[in-house]
Formats: sequence, structure tokens, C-alpha cells
Amino acid sequence: MFENAERTELSTLGEFGLIDHLTKNFTLRNNTIAGVGDDAAVIKTSNGKCTLISTDMLLEGVHFDLSYFPLKHLGYKAITVNLSDMYAMNAKPNQVTVSIAMSSRFSLEAVEEIYQGIQLACDKYEVDLVGGDTSTSKQGLVISVTVVGEATENEIVYRKGAQVNDLVVVTGDLGGAYCGFQMLEREKRVYIDNPSVQPDLAGYDYILERQLKPEARKDIIEIFKNLTIHPTSMIDVSDGLASECFHLAKNSELGITLYEDKIPIDPTTYNFARELDLDPTLCALSGGEDYELLFTINQSDFEKLSTHPDFSIIGYVTDKSAGMNLITKGGNKHTLQAQGWAAF
Amino acid sequence: MFENAERTELSTLGEFGLIDHLTKNFTLRNNTIAGVGDDAAVIKTSNGKCTLISTDMLLEGVHFDLSYFPLKHLGYKAITVNLSDMYAMNAKPNQVTVSIAMSSRFSLEAVEEIYQGIQLACDKYEVDLVGGDTSTSKQGLVISVTVVGEATENEIVYRKGAQVNDLVVVTGDLGGAYCGFQMLEREKRVYIDNPSVQPDLAGYDYILERQLKPEARKDIIEIFKNLTIHPTSMIDVSDGLASECFHLAKNSELGITLYEDKIPIDPTTYNFARELDLDPTLCALSGGEDYELLFTINQSDFEKLSTHPDFSIIGYVTDKSAGMNLITKGGNKHTLQAQGWAAF
Repeated sequence: MFENAERTELSTLGEFGLIDHLTKNFTLRNNTIAGVGDDAAVIKTSNGKCTLISTDMLLEGVHFDLSYFPLKHLGYKAITVNLSDMYAMNAKPNQVTVSIAMSSRFSLEAVEEIYQGIQLACDKYEVDLVGGDTSTSKQGLVISVTVVGEATENEIVYRKGAQVNDLVVVTGDLGGAYCGFQMLEREKRVYIDNPSVQPDLAGYDYILERQLKPEARKDIIEIFKNLTIHPTSMIDVSDGLASECFHLAKNSELGITLYEDKIPIDPTTYNFARELDLDPTLCALSGGEDYELLFTINQSDFEKLSTHPDFSIIGYVTDKSAGMNLITKGGNKHTLQAQGWAAF
Repeated sequence: MFENAERTELSTLGEFGLIDHLTKNFTLRNNTIAGVGDDAAVIKTSNGKCTLISTDMLLEGVHFDLSYFPLKHLGYKAITVNLSDMYAMNAKPNQVTVSIAMSSRFSLEAVEEIYQGIQLACDKYEVDLVGGDTSTSKQGLVISVTVVGEATENEIVYRKGAQVNDLVVVTGDLGGAYCGFQMLEREKRVYIDNPSVQPDLAGYDYILERQLKPEARKDIIEIFKNLTIHPTSMIDVSDGLASECFHLAKNSELGITLYEDKIPIDPTTYNFARELDLDPTLCALSGGEDYELLFTINQSDFEKLSTHPDFSIIGYVTDKSAGMNLITKGGNKHTLQAQGWAAF
């Protein structure tokens, strides 16, 4: 069946190129305002109100490793990473559906653990579980989550919309989830080599939690309301800061310049990266899974958030011809590389 | 990780028992009208308008066999089976999202075939593809589809709502998809035994199409509008007529009596079942995947559809104590068995 005369490897397109390619001939004909290509699709309901929808699939062996990922945390993370997409649209998530496929090696108690994590996340973020199905998997565990949100047409923030001279802002700190992942992988190798050795995770709670129990930035869209800030563009940091900057720049048809010394990195992240001979800046730029919000604001909004501890102003928007740049701590200008997660 | 002291096998609950068990402690707090437990969840937007959402995951080796299932048909079917859930709520589907996970053995051309099928279905049923992602699978192909629909609060038909003495009606004919599946499995075995033998599918186009390219009954909800029929309860036939009758009866807290001689079976289905020594009635009752609509109406609506060729009146609703019954062609009363697809 796959012995076509013509055969193009999927790896030639990458994840984002592939989706663009596959969906380019589809037309929108109903009450859809925005389809494929942002953190969520936007559907107009009535009176300027919109329903937003976003979906994501997590696969064992690709997105998580059950040898160290607790099932309860997995259920929690499956929800929060999807809610993050909704906050990245400046929208309020209200409902989720969850489809789970698993093999018969799972006991009822194991599946209950996943649902306990799902319920914790639903309670914390005040969303309703409204649908889902379970089915058999011949292979690994698969979890597919869809989140439904709401916002008025005016509230919604897209990846496009940034303007030249806008400030580039990111919440929280970056690189932690990637370092947590590296630590878990290291301890797994140690355990495989010598099962009697106890894992040494002391002092690394922060980066472990960033990887195993990420939170979505619900608080940020509430802060936006309170500070009357309306970002000109926004995305969540799932694939890494660099990759997300490329998305904002591409969708807004502009360039972005970042300052290395402004990128927020937690000391635990910094120390662990150094311990592993990793460049902490590279962990932040390319690590991903931090689920912070990256956005742009008009300079006139600078005062509103300049002293707020949750925000770091890390760069500015340029015209497209200036390209994508990183000013290093030493003052040199480097071309920014997109090194987000590539699907194939 | 799975060596819990307590271990309950998933098979002890079955698919529907499992979902009920896992979601029983979840609370609804937002604008959700109906959550888990129907063909779609219902969310109130404004002015009596509702957004409906339904999701389904298809896995290679569980729901389809790529050795005989053409990729284009697979893409088409992944959409139509989800749209069917929306029509089963008497709602209009408007948007779909599609997540696909596949291994690198797939070429771009293979994935394009899946999307061609998806696009055909989107065009025919006038729905918008608004989101989706692709990712790597270490094992088989996984397709997860979510469909978003709309209806007014008054239009929506649930699984609950049937009344004693209502008529039980089904559209089209039943058992064909199951016989198509049996034929494909038979030809696969023949091919494995002797690869030089050409498959003998002549004269069986109808049941093949029922299995490989099922349609959703968009036309029926338009007929309901034209005939001013509002079913009292409804479900689509995905797991088999018997299983769906049990769902309607359970949700409405009533009983159902069916007449074997009224169950619509196409001659091709009938002949093929006989060829394989299968009971055609059992194929209709337990085969599933027909994606017809099963519903109940008040007897006062009888005249409106009694002569319409798309509808068969196959039974009536009783009180709960009468139970679930099948009156055979010979006039005997048998207890109806639910033999829908069991996930574990």
C-alpha cells in the first residue's frame, strides 16, 4: 500500500509545514472566524461572542515515558497543556473532552489514577469534563484532549497582530521543563544500569514539577483584564521560546530581536543545565514545555507591566527585513534559530 | 508501576460502565447543559442557542485494518462517523478538528490520501476543518476527530426523553457494514493463504461501501424539519441496533419491544449473511457501524412518516418492568441481548 511510485518522506516538511500543506485546499464556509494555524480555532456564535476550540494528542513513547511519569501527573498535564492553548488566545476554557486508548495491561486502578489527575486539573481550572471515550490500544497509551473556551471577538488575541516596535514579553521563567526532562532521563539511565541505586532528585523539585506537573497561566489573562492590557499577539511556549518567536513573527509578517540577558531562567534550571554542560539559554530557547505565555504589547502599555514580577520584557518587534535576532550577553548579534520540536 | 496491590481488570466494566465509573465524581460548573453520556455534549451559548461537541478516536488494528482499508476512505469515514453523532442530537455539524499520529513508514503521499478523504467528507457535509495536529506514532496510525455543531435548545434530541407507547423507528437498513467487514476479513484470509488469488467482491458493492465509506444521515434531520417531527429520543447506530436500544431504554428508564420482521435488512446483506451461515437479524442487532439513526416518536407523529421510504417502524416503548424484548418472525417473545462492541 505504501509502495507508491512517488514517495516523499514526511521529515522533509516538519510538523508545521506538513499541517499547512495538508490543509491548504480546505475552505471555511460556516461561522468559522479562524481555522488551522493558531493555538485554537475561533467560531462565532452570536452577539460578538465566540466559541474557541483546540485539540492535542499525547502518545506514550513520543510525548511521555511511563517508566517515570506518574499516571496522575499525566492526566493533570494532559489537561493543563490544552488549557494553555486557550489562555494563549486570551480566552476562558470551560469544557474538555478526553479520549483515552490503552491496552489491557492497564488495570482499572491505573486508569482511575489518570482520571484523578484529570479531575484535579478540572477542579483547579474550573473546567467541565463533558465527553470522552475509552478504547483498546494494541500498543501504547494515547490521550487525546479537546478544550472548548469562550471569549468575545474583541478579547481574542491571535498569533498575528504584532506591530513594529512592540515589546516582546514572556511570563514566568523558561527552560525548567526541559531540564526536568533531562534529569528524569538521566536517573532512568542510572536505574537501568544499577537498579539498586536510589534516584538522586533532592533540590530539583522545581524543574521536576515543571516537567511532570506543568500549570497553565490562567492567572495571566486575569492580570491582563485588571491591568487593561490587550496583547497585540500571543502564543504559549510549548515548543521553546525560539520556535514560538518564529510563529509570532511569521504570522505577523515581522521580525523579532531578543536579548539573551533578559530571558528569565530560574536558578535551579541554570545550575542543573550547567551541571549537565548544557547552555541554559539554549534550554530556554529550544527546550519547550514551559507553558508560559509569550506575547507582544504596544510600548504605551510598558508602564502597566514593567514592575510586575510575572513578566519579563525580553525583546522587541522589528520589520521583517531585520529578521530574527538574538543579542548575546556579550553584545553580539546572532541569527535566532528555530529549534522547536520537529514531529518527524 | 502496574503492580498495585489491588488490580481490577478493565474488562470487568466494559466500555460504557468504565466511562460512567471514571466520570461519576466530576461536577459541571460552567455553561454545560449535558456532559458525558450522550452522543454529544451540549453547551449553552446565548439566546437559547447551543454549541455541541463530540469526539472519537480511531486506532489501527482496533478500529481499522490498513491491509484492506484504503487511506482515502479512512479519512472520509473518520469524519462521517463523527458527524453521525451530531445528527443523532438533531444538530447541525459545522466544524471538525483532526489529530493524526503516524509512524515514519507513512509517506507524504499516504497522508495526503487521508486528507483527500477528509476533504471530500468536509465538502459533502459542508463542515469546516478548523484545527488539528500531526505527530509521530511509535506504533500504528491514530486518528482523533472532534466535531462541533449547533442547534437551539428546543431542537436538541437526547437519548433520554422517550415515553411509554412511543414508536421505535430506524432509518435505512442494518447489518450491511458488519457483513462488509466480514467479507473483507474473508478475502484477507484467502489472500494470505494464496496471494495469487484475486479477491472476489463482485455483486457486493453495497455492503463494501457500508463498511468502507459510510455516510452520516444529514438528510434525516432535514426531513424531520420538513415533516415537523421532533423525536422524543435518538441515537446513532454505531454499536448495533440492540446496544442502541439499550441506551435509549436506560436513559429514558423504559423498556423496548422490537419486531424481528420489521428490522430493515438489504437483500445483499441478507444473502451474504446466509452465505456465511450468519443470522441476518443478528447482524443487524449486533453488527454495528451502520450509522443509521434510531429514534422514538409519539404515536401522533405516525402518519407523518409511515409512508416515507427512509423510515422503518420496528417496535414500541413499554414501561421499564416489561424489559427489553424481541418478537421473532415466528411470534415468540425473546429477551433482547445487548451485544454492542465491548472495548475490553
